[in-house]
Amino acid sequence: MDNLQIHYVRQVQGEVTRAQFACVTAPLPSAAEGQLLVRNIYLSLDPYQRRQMMPDVNYGQPLRVGEVMTGRDIARVVSSCDSRFAPGDWVRGAFGWQVYAAVDALKAERIELDGFSPTAFLGVLGNPGLTAWVGLRAIARAQRGETVVISAATGAVGSVVAALAAASGCRVVGIAGGQDKCAHAVKALNFEACVDHRSPDFAAQLEASTPAGVDINFENVGGMVFDAVLRRLNDFSRVVLCGLVSQYNLLDPYGMRHIAELLNKSVMLQGFRVSSYMQHRESAYAEIKVLLRQGLLTQHETVIDGLEKAPDAFIGLLRGHNLGKQLIRIGPDQQ
Amino acid sequence: MDNLQIHYVRQVQGEVTRAQFACVTAPLPSAAEGQLLVRNIYLSLDPYQRRQMMPDVNYGQPLRVGEVMTGRDIARVVSSCDSRFAPGDWVRGAFGWQVYAAVDALKAERIELDGFSPTAFLGVLGNPGLTAWVGLRAIARAQRGETVVISAATGAVGSVVAALAAASGCRVVGIAGGQDKCAHAVKALNFEACVDHRSPDFAAQLEASTPAGVDINFENVGGMVFDAVLRRLNDFSRVVLCGLVSQYNLLDPYGMRHIAELLNKSVMLQGFRVSSYMQHRESAYAEIKVLLRQGLLTQHETVIDGLEKAPDAFIGLLRGHNLGKQLIRIGPDQQ
Repeated sequence: MDNLQIHYVRQVQGEVTRAQFACVTAPLPSAAEGQLLVRNIYLSLDPYQRRQMMPDVNYGQPLRVGEVMTGRDIARVVSSCDSRFAPGDWVRGAFGWQVYAAVDALKAERIELDGFSPTAFLGVLGNPGLTAWVGLRAIARAQRGETVVISAATGAVGSVVAALAAASGCRVVGIAGGQDKCAHAVKALNFEACVDHRSPDFAAQLEASTPAGVDINFENVGGMVFDAVLRRLNDFSRVVLCGLVSQYNLLDPYGMRHIAELLNKSVMLQGFRVSSYMQHRESAYAEIKVLLRQGLLTQHETVIDGLEKAPDAFIGLLRGHNLGKQLIRIGPDQQ
Repeated sequence: MDNLQIHYVRQVQGEVTRAQFACVTAPLPSAAEGQLLVRNIYLSLDPYQRRQMMPDVNYGQPLRVGEVMTGRDIARVVSSCDSRFAPGDWVRGAFGWQVYAAVDALKAERIELDGFSPTAFLGVLGNPGLTAWVGLRAIARAQRGETVVISAATGAVGSVVAALAAASGCRVVGIAGGQDKCAHAVKALNFEACVDHRSPDFAAQLEASTPAGVDINFENVGGMVFDAVLRRLNDFSRVVLCGLVSQYNLLDPYGMRHIAELLNKSVMLQGFRVSSYMQHRESAYAEIKVLLRQGLLTQHETVIDGLEKAPDAFIGLLRGHNLGKQLIRIGPDQQ
């Protein structure tokens, strides 16, 4: 039996294209002592993976040309050489863009589905959900009545931020690319308003949607979108700098013109990666599970079948083609 | 007896020029019940005053066209209609660009010189010193061994930041405009190195001067200078955003290209104005007095005689012509 893999084969310069990737058929690995052989069921695609392609950015696992693409999966154990795991167990980890992986048991995290879909553990109950919680609760410390503006509103992180902010009694305003996403944000998610950043009067719409200014900006997009939000910030507001997806494919970054607002309004900005905040996992997932069970949060996801589709799906993700959490189904849910 | 005043007479657009100011001779005011008549001895000129000229920036006292220029002075009481003050007392407050002022006693702060020069109370022992302390101690929480980069290194704030950082065992690197200032920073202040931002290889010099990267950026300048420092930031570094003097006179602000570093390095940035941190006054001035008495900090100042010179001195300050604390001597120190 063979193991299908997607390798990262050419250093990206600017826009990610199919030229970065190659499908490779490798021999099936086997688990050594202390290892597990896992079969990946779902692969998570996330914008941060584009940052791992930047040689000067130290973001989690470095990605090197010639290696299997890095990425997080939810998988099932096929065979175990560690007494704590048994075949059939659900596990989560950075198992990469491949069907099978032989991984150190210490790097696999056992998952109890607990009535939730396996895909939830790469989204609302995975790093995107934790990222949302950390940014809103641990960094911004959202308070009732505050206005929270979330860019990439319908994305895997933004949609959880919105649910958490709504649960705290905040006024939740989204920014998304396109009328369809904005309509979805207001109809299906927890946004009171959502502004289309592709609209020619985006800045005016943003102003109209934030009559009391902005107390928290959960920033996922950067560039012109971020620059416009800066102009709406209130005194003592907070910017949770989570992502800059609009900039990752650019060789020539957007020049931010309204940085003076950070000074004029006594703003606190915190850039962060979720790996620095793992101590909050238990609190975060506990609160998110409550919201899921109460129906106050639903994971919207775009699932594409087949590992070989991962490169195109990732390219599309960086262009904002997905709605909600972007996943690749690699294998069947049931054994 | 008349009262010489400088009025702000024309809204600035871009560069501040003499056209913004007019010398006015007003009648001598008198103190009403609960007021003091004070004679200003020294006037403080500070870059933040340029921000008060921006109608959309809420920074302390708003400045309106047709009014006496706002500014902080150290003064002596001429006559008092408040039992807590007596003629001859030194007082500090926002008494403006004028020789005499009738002010509410509640807005005057009595100053005990305690062996220090009156000018110190507008510099190292005034808001600039407190600003330095708050930024380094309360916001950045500087630790021994960290690299601190301070722009406007020889200015009223920067020079105090350097002394405090050196006292904490930090590696202190300055950025200043011109070789003379850089030489002064290394020779007379607490900088291990100082880089001239006018130098064509500024970025390369900055890199060479920060071999271990930058843990704290105490930012006073903004624009290209700030953008270059962003590229040197370490993981979990802090940016103390205190001023953006290079931008205040620009109609078209510099576009910041390296904002992604704030994300990539998990940076905390805090914009601030000292008025939000008044609770630290006692701790700050106590530490600064120790440094002054130990000779580890000296106030370098540029004093110009005559209130009528204030407009030109202020225009020069915004262009970086001053060395150290910029002051106008309005009256004689001795009565």
